Amino acid sequence: MGKGKIAVQVGHATITASEETRRHHPEWWKGWFNEGQCKVVVKVNSESELHELKRQADELGLASAIIHDSGLTQVEPGTATCLGIGPAPAEVVDKITGTLPLL
Amino acid sequence: MGKGKIAVQVGHATITASEETRRHHPEWWKGWFNEGQCKVVVKVNSESELHELKRQADELGLASAIIHDSGLTQVEPGTATCLGIGPAPAEVVDKITGTLPLL
Repeated sequence: MGKGKIAVQVGHATITASEETRRHHPEWWKGWFNEGQCKVVVKVNSESELHELKRQADELGLASAIIHDSGLTQVEPGTATCLGIGPAPAEVVDKITGTLPLL
Repeated sequence: MGKGKIAVQVGHATITASEETRRHHPEWWKGWFNEGQCKVVVKVNSESELHELKRQADELGLASAIIHDSGLTQVEPGTATCLGIGPAPAEVVDKITGTLPLL
């Protein structure tokens, strides 16, 4: 994916995961929203890795959202392009993504 | 900026502009949120262009947000990196960004 398309996928994941968090962990959401809204974008090597990380987020009770692309342009229809996790306390999110390289 | 940093700036702009819209145009926000959350990422050539587009958004009564980077890594502190506009009806946003090239 080109950088513009990546940015759109991250935008989708940001909104969807943050809305889930607002619903299920409103205190985490409020703290994050008012204190700089830290975001870290890291990369994985495969769609199956996205699904595995989502499973780990579910296990830890974190809000998360996998974004599927309609595939009109750069990827096949239905491709999982991105996973948003949290917001949540950094030490919790780091259990899932802390060792992944920055994009 | 690298693609990961661009994605973070777009994530910031997405959240901030959409929260502004939720507050000032809740009906636009709700429609957008429930109908695919269309996002389009376009590019400009300068910070002053971002400020000029923000001025136009203000004039049309659209919610918008300029993102400033703290400049710890790839840009000077306080650099305006990104402008989020809307969500709003496409024909209104297009008055401002409709002729800009996709990122």
